[in-house]
Amino acid sequence: MSTTPLRVTVWGENVHEQVEQHVADRYPDGMHGAIAAGVRENLPDAVVRTATMDQPEHGLTDEVLEQTDVLTWWGHAAHADVDDAVVERVHRHVLAGMGLLVLHSGHWSKIFGKLMGTTCTLRWRSEHDRELVWTVNPQHPITRGVPNPIVIPEQEMYGEYFDVPTPDELIFISGFTGGEVFRSGMTYRRGFGKIFFFSPGDQDFPVYFHPDVRRVISNGVEWARPERERATPTLLRYDLGEYFDGKDYAGPIDEPVEA
Amino acid sequence: MSTTPLRVTVWGENVHEQVEQHVADRYPDGMHGAIAAGVRENLPDAVVRTATMDQPEHGLTDEVLEQTDVLTWWGHAAHADVDDAVVERVHRHVLAGMGLLVLHSGHWSKIFGKLMGTTCTLRWRSEHDRELVWTVNPQHPITRGVPNPIVIPEQEMYGEYFDVPTPDELIFISGFTGGEVFRSGMTYRRGFGKIFFFSPGDQDFPVYFHPDVRRVISNGVEWARPERERATPTLLRYDLGEYFDGKDYAGPIDEPVEA
Amino acid sequence: MSTTPLRVTVWGENVHEQVEQHVADRYPDGMHGAIAAGVRENLPDAVVRTATMDQPEHGLTDEVLEQTDVLTWWGHAAHADVDDAVVERVHRHVLAGMGLLVLHSGHWSKIFGKLMGTTCTLRWRSEHDRELVWTVNPQHPITRGVPNPIVIPEQEMYGEYFDVPTPDELIFISGFTGGEVFRSGMTYRRGFGKIFFFSPGDQDFPVYFHPDVRRVISNGVEWARPERERATPTLLRYDLGEYFDGKDYAGPIDEPVEA
Amino acid sequence: MSTTPLRVTVWGENVHEQVEQHVADRYPDGMHGAIAAGVRENLPDAVVRTATMDQPEHGLTDEVLEQTDVLTWWGHAAHADVDDAVVERVHRHVLAGMGLLVLHSGHWSKIFGKLMGTTCTLRWRSEHDRELVWTVNPQHPITRGVPNPIVIPEQEMYGEYFDVPTPDELIFISGFTGGEVFRSGMTYRRGFGKIFFFSPGDQDFPVYFHPDVRRVISNGVEWARPERERATPTLLRYDLGEYFDGKDYAGPIDEPVEA
Repeated sequence: MSTTPLRVTVWGENVHEQVEQHVADRYPDGMHGAIAAGVRENLPDAVVRTATMDQPEHGLTDEVLEQTDVLTWWGHAAHADVDDAVVERVHRHVLAGMGLLVLHSGHWSKIFGKLMGTTCTLRWRSEHDRELVWTVNPQHPITRGVPNPIVIPEQEMYGEYFDVPTPDELIFISGFTGGEVFRSGMTYRRGFGKIFFFSPGDQDFPVYFHPDVRRVISNGVEWARPERERATPTLLRYDLGEYFDGKDYAGPIDEPVEA
Repeated sequence: MSTTPLRVTVWGENVHEQVEQHVADRYPDGMHGAIAAGVRENLPDAVVRTATMDQPEHGLTDEVLEQTDVLTWWGHAAHADVDDAVVERVHRHVLAGMGLLVLHSGHWSKIFGKLMGTTCTLRWRSEHDRELVWTVNPQHPITRGVPNPIVIPEQEMYGEYFDVPTPDELIFISGFTGGEVFRSGMTYRRGFGKIFFFSPGDQDFPVYFHPDVRRVISNGVEWARPERERATPTLLRYDLGEYFDGKDYAGPIDEPVEA
Repeated sequence: MSTTPLRVTVWGENVHEQVEQHVADRYPDGMHGAIAAGVRENLPDAVVRTATMDQPEHGLTDEVLEQTDVLTWWGHAAHADVDDAVVERVHRHVLAGMGLLVLHSGHWSKIFGKLMGTTCTLRWRSEHDRELVWTVNPQHPITRGVPNPIVIPEQEMYGEYFDVPTPDELIFISGFTGGEVFRSGMTYRRGFGKIFFFSPGDQDFPVYFHPDVRRVISNGVEWARPERERATPTLLRYDLGEYFDGKDYAGPIDEPVEA
Repeated sequence: MSTTPLRVTVWGENVHEQVEQHVADRYPDGMHGAIAAGVRENLPDAVVRTATMDQPEHGLTDEVLEQTDVLTWWGHAAHADVDDAVVERVHRHVLAGMGLLVLHSGHWSKIFGKLMGTTCTLRWRSEHDRELVWTVNPQHPITRGVPNPIVIPEQEMYGEYFDVPTPDELIFISGFTGGEVFRSGMTYRRGFGKIFFFSPGDQDFPVYFHPDVRRVISNGVEWARPERERATPTLLRYDLGEYFDGKDYAGPIDEPVEA
């Protein structure tokens, strides 16, 4: 395994913190600041930086993404304001191998929708439900070191039907005070990139200070680290008996009929 | 199960047939014509119509799609020319429950890419390889009535790595003369819609006259039939203790800070 | 699809009904009687019979199993008393194509353990929890016609971690009063047989009279119907270029060394 | 992650090497010796030992298994002679968390059958086919450092239908000279244990000296390492509101009726 430090970029929309005083009080360093602190705490050797929507190109230039092994994404109030060109760029980097963690309300972000191909809608309520996060895949490295269940005293409720593709791995299922359930931890592979969706975390509750939530996010970041050099899957032609030297695509029509 | 007839729309790009004489000779009623004939042969009670790219709105108006239980898609030379608005419309209908079969070179169509979220690239060669289509899920209704393997004397080679999400169900794997392998029959669920990708079929070979290929496509059409009334997954808020009466989304910010 | 009637055998342990008066009162025709009535109600064309443990060979002779398309299994108090020879026989028929529904406490039966390869243990409590059964796979035929969620006013709690293999399809997740969650509807394919595990149902509560529970069981029975003639997967040798005429295994050692 | 060395036990049946001269010549240290050498080569920090069938308790006492993080299993000629008590013991350790690699003809071993619940049969031919091992899951750590495809000049052919459960992850698919295909690399989770099946490897060909095959086996060993302390999944009762202090099972009948 690589001995170079893991490079993590924590992206935060950083809007609630600016317009809602109670969020600013709860997350004095921003929600991205709390998430980044949790990763640093659990992965002291990782290089963790933050980026926010108000920066040029939302802080996600090609240069930043090239130097990012794993990107975490939290957004909510301003999904629609995220620049489509940045979404395209992040999508391209994920397919080429960059790891991605989509957190909580990131379920409705442009980038998650583009990777999933579905509406990513769900049922919800923000009324102080207790959330219990149950492990259903105890052999998975993302579950390392957390109790079963993780108890989150107050949380927004997210419930089924959650309109996403069947995950590659279902890791956590949450149960709420109201009796709702939610597939709260799931992995996906898209292109050469690994994706982990984890739903606990909200602007209205101090969930990103919860030690078990921080541990899961950090485990997820480690898990999503790429195994290979970044490269984009490409359509190539191979001669009979030739397996390694592919040729670029030259178009669909071999023998056009004379006009 | 429903007693109303299954309504199938076979969509064909219909370009090779116009510009390559050998394709026109091979498929005198168009490739869509051959595919539709195969479905009619195997599902005599189904109502099967065709639609092609040269028709207004590519023959896929909202009215047509509303009356379509399952759509099959074959395209190749003109993927880029398919109107984005039509792609959006087909996507919306699939998420709302319409079944979709993506055939052969349809792997690189806009609609398949939008539903998968990946590049959908692969390795290929059109040099008269023999294709053997092996069943790896013999309990699946899509495999009903076909031998293991299906023998296709001449075919374009499609090989791995095929950049698509892990399927919900892997049903067929093909092996080619050159030793390449391909996940040639896979199902996906997106939104309320069922999707079957099946790779055998090409403009350069008479594959859509092969009785086993016709049988698989017909089985797939039957399998993809919707189970429910068409409806789009929607984000709704539910009160504590209320499970059936959801309320529309009213925006992300509950208590805006005074400017 | 077959036009012959679907043949269902509902197997009941029939012990609680004999030794606990409250169960006898709740299920005057036995639990198997209630389950069979629910299937008959929803699938009027099916031929439904029952079999119980106290019958010779537990009512599951080879002749009965040969004439059974789908077997449903409910057991609890007497798992250990089920004859191993009968378990072997049922196992063989499932691998050869017979459908199997494993209901509620059947999770700890010998036949389920043998098919799963795991301990099939879980957490539980029988204290009048309410169970909400949430659909997470709304395109699946097993969900046809039931509300989301199904509300069961009183039930035994079954919770995670449920030690079973990752299912082929996760269809229902239940949430309980206590906040526990459970993968309550799952499909598996083993050999040529289709298996549906569905957990709602208990001797202490009248769950098998619940119309939605009866509907799901009936949907499951329909889904598990075999697609093929019964046949056991077999190891066969094929010559190069020969795909359909396999030869029986003749042992592992080709050329024994002279002593 | 753990900093203690990974402890690997390579189990070999060691029968062909004793009764077939050509196998003894090909594998002078036994097949288990070649496999162990490949793991040592790729994982120099691991502690690798071997065990064989002719040892007391086949070399797999409880003490050995307790000190084994990952066990690899190769058997063929003498599957039936493996002691059922040893099979039970290995099964118990896998469910409690020990990793297991099942190699090649181990597909028909008692332990694999017990974990899978199916016949584990396939089609085969030992006639110098070339095997190409294609990666279909390039983000998986087991694929690290090997080409796509891995080229094995001569191999026994294993073909579909391979009667095993749908894997948790499909990693490799092989194609053979004859056109057959085979799911040759698959992962499963059973209990708390991780299992990797990998088919390349045979007594008739020097496959366990192939550097890519050795690399895959070593990657698999690393991947199968347990994440947790060994513990067996257990059925426990939890009071309402109590999540961590479960009580042992006390039997199925609460209130026996007076005789």
